[in-house]
Amino acid sequence: MDRLKKIAIIGLGLIGSSIAHATRRGRLAAEIAGHDASKDVVERARILGFCDSLHDDVATAVKNADLVILCTPVGAYKSVAREIAPHLKAGAILSDVGSVKGAVVRDIGPFVPQKVHFIPAHPIAGTEFSGPEAGFASLFDGRWTILTPVKGSDPEAVQRLKTFWQALGSQVDVMNAGHHDLVLAIVSHLPHLIAYNIVGTAHDLEKVTQGEVIKYSASGFRDFTRIAASDPTMWRDVFLNNRDAVLEVLGRFNEDLSQLQRAVRNGDGKTLFDWFTRTRAVRRAIVEIGQDTPSFGRLPFQVYVPPKKDGKKPGKKKSTARKKTPPQKRAKTKRPRAK
Amino acid sequence: MDRLKKIAIIGLGLIGSSIAHATRRGRLAAEIAGHDASKDVVERARILGFCDSLHDDVATAVKNADLVILCTPVGAYKSVAREIAPHLKAGAILSDVGSVKGAVVRDIGPFVPQKVHFIPAHPIAGTEFSGPEAGFASLFDGRWTILTPVKGSDPEAVQRLKTFWQALGSQVDVMNAGHHDLVLAIVSHLPHLIAYNIVGTAHDLEKVTQGEVIKYSASGFRDFTRIAASDPTMWRDVFLNNRDAVLEVLGRFNEDLSQLQRAVRNGDGKTLFDWFTRTRAVRRAIVEIGQDTPSFGRLPFQVYVPPKKDGKKPGKKKSTARKKTPPQKRAKTKRPRAK
Repeated sequence: MDRLKKIAIIGLGLIGSSIAHATRRGRLAAEIAGHDASKDVVERARILGFCDSLHDDVATAVKNADLVILCTPVGAYKSVAREIAPHLKAGAILSDVGSVKGAVVRDIGPFVPQKVHFIPAHPIAGTEFSGPEAGFASLFDGRWTILTPVKGSDPEAVQRLKTFWQALGSQVDVMNAGHHDLVLAIVSHLPHLIAYNIVGTAHDLEKVTQGEVIKYSASGFRDFTRIAASDPTMWRDVFLNNRDAVLEVLGRFNEDLSQLQRAVRNGDGKTLFDWFTRTRAVRRAIVEIGQDTPSFGRLPFQVYVPPKKDGKKPGKKKSTARKKTPPQKRAKTKRPRAK
Repeated sequence: MDRLKKIAIIGLGLIGSSIAHATRRGRLAAEIAGHDASKDVVERARILGFCDSLHDDVATAVKNADLVILCTPVGAYKSVAREIAPHLKAGAILSDVGSVKGAVVRDIGPFVPQKVHFIPAHPIAGTEFSGPEAGFASLFDGRWTILTPVKGSDPEAVQRLKTFWQALGSQVDVMNAGHHDLVLAIVSHLPHLIAYNIVGTAHDLEKVTQGEVIKYSASGFRDFTRIAASDPTMWRDVFLNNRDAVLEVLGRFNEDLSQLQRAVRNGDGKTLFDWFTRTRAVRRAIVEIGQDTPSFGRLPFQVYVPPKKDGKKPGKKKSTARKKTPPQKRAKTKRPRAK
């Protein structure tokens, strides 16, 4: 793709900082401009050094940018859009990374000036970590990004944004906002709601202590806690902004759960066995298309590589987590070759 | 611990074969005898070579064994117990690895001869893989095993079994069967039921295609599919044999879910935010006590180490999974240092 003169990233958390890293990795823009509503985050971004320019004022950040990407929580879009609208360059692309798309069209659409191309987008990638320190250049590699152009979007601009996301490492699909929101409700929003729910339930049980829940978590519960550790602000906004689709799939989930509950109550082994067999095929398909490793990322050989000490990232805090799992301990947890 | 003369492992799937590997690693028994109801599994175990002797007849397998561990699905315990009872050595320990304990006491208890020490046990460790090829020596390292001695269990025998599990690499707790079943209902059985349920719901939606569910699974759904890929026979037996505790925690789960559902419907952002913040603390505690890595096993540096070619494991199939993810591809998915 043609190199951008300037990209503006509004919101420098996990996704915003990862876009900056990947943009730099691919030399996709002459200037990476960044803004965050939090001065503390701007300061941490300055130390991490993944932006070429940092701006306390969002209007300055977007000035003359060819591409502006909103990476704030979805709940902040409306006010950000209102604030930046008068400062957008003619011909610029205005996009975002929000996990819901219908609400984004509703909130941003009315503020978009003529001659600015508004194309919502959603990279399906993430970790349970948040903040500017959490970003990394390969976050989007091999993942999917969905573009949801609005009525009258310029096809040439859509193609440019598609090429940009491909250059970030992503595969790109295009669909309408409504369908996106339904797909995401089942593959992402409902799983998060369920994970948040079960971790809450376990937290509140009187007959089982917190210590027991935590000690024996390796038996299944642990996998839910990772999901339920995701950013609370982002997820609150997701549920506030994709209500109808979430309630629709939740209704289906509840119906199905009643059926399994009845099978447990009645000791109906056949229903349980058939259900549990069917779900295995879904897992196999996911592994086959490369959206997960067979060992679920818990790879057979884990080799400790010490962090670089070339002083390129001054002031970066050492990971306390790493201190707690020294190389000797890691070596012990090595996994078998996947079968 | 004193080296055992003979250990008999009945059922050579993931757990049974892992016990064999770990017993050999620790040189904990002079003879590791194995049996499986499936002749095919016995044959595969023979090729893998993790037992010293293999027996089509379960009575021969347990003969003269100091320690007999049932590793079959829980549903088979009753008939196995009936069959082996007359052949158990006086002073032997009879144990198991089932995920439920009350039902095990009920099914096996009546058949246990005098002078045999019956001590149910449950190692909280596993992967989503099954079969004799799935086992490995370090499966129990750092995990917890719960012993649930029955009324009148000989404390000295309990201590011997505890020492054995510690020698396999495990930490050991002792509690009564009823409490075990309630704890496991919340940390393991309910999470599995929920995961099986949501994968089934996604599978059945008409408005979202299977292809879409699989393609975009990285956004949360993927983590559920791993759990929902666990062995269907084992899990059917778990739900048939821990009905009351599962229904109790499922009731609580449903109450909580109604509350979250209402918050979504009413656009109650405060309830959602508070709930999502609280659950983060549980995750932190799990990482702190070392029952997971901060990056959830998706470690920062993944280095490909080719399988040994010393011919020590003749006939072992090459992993097709590995073929699909060559080193170059793996290198691309490396993760950032955990924050």
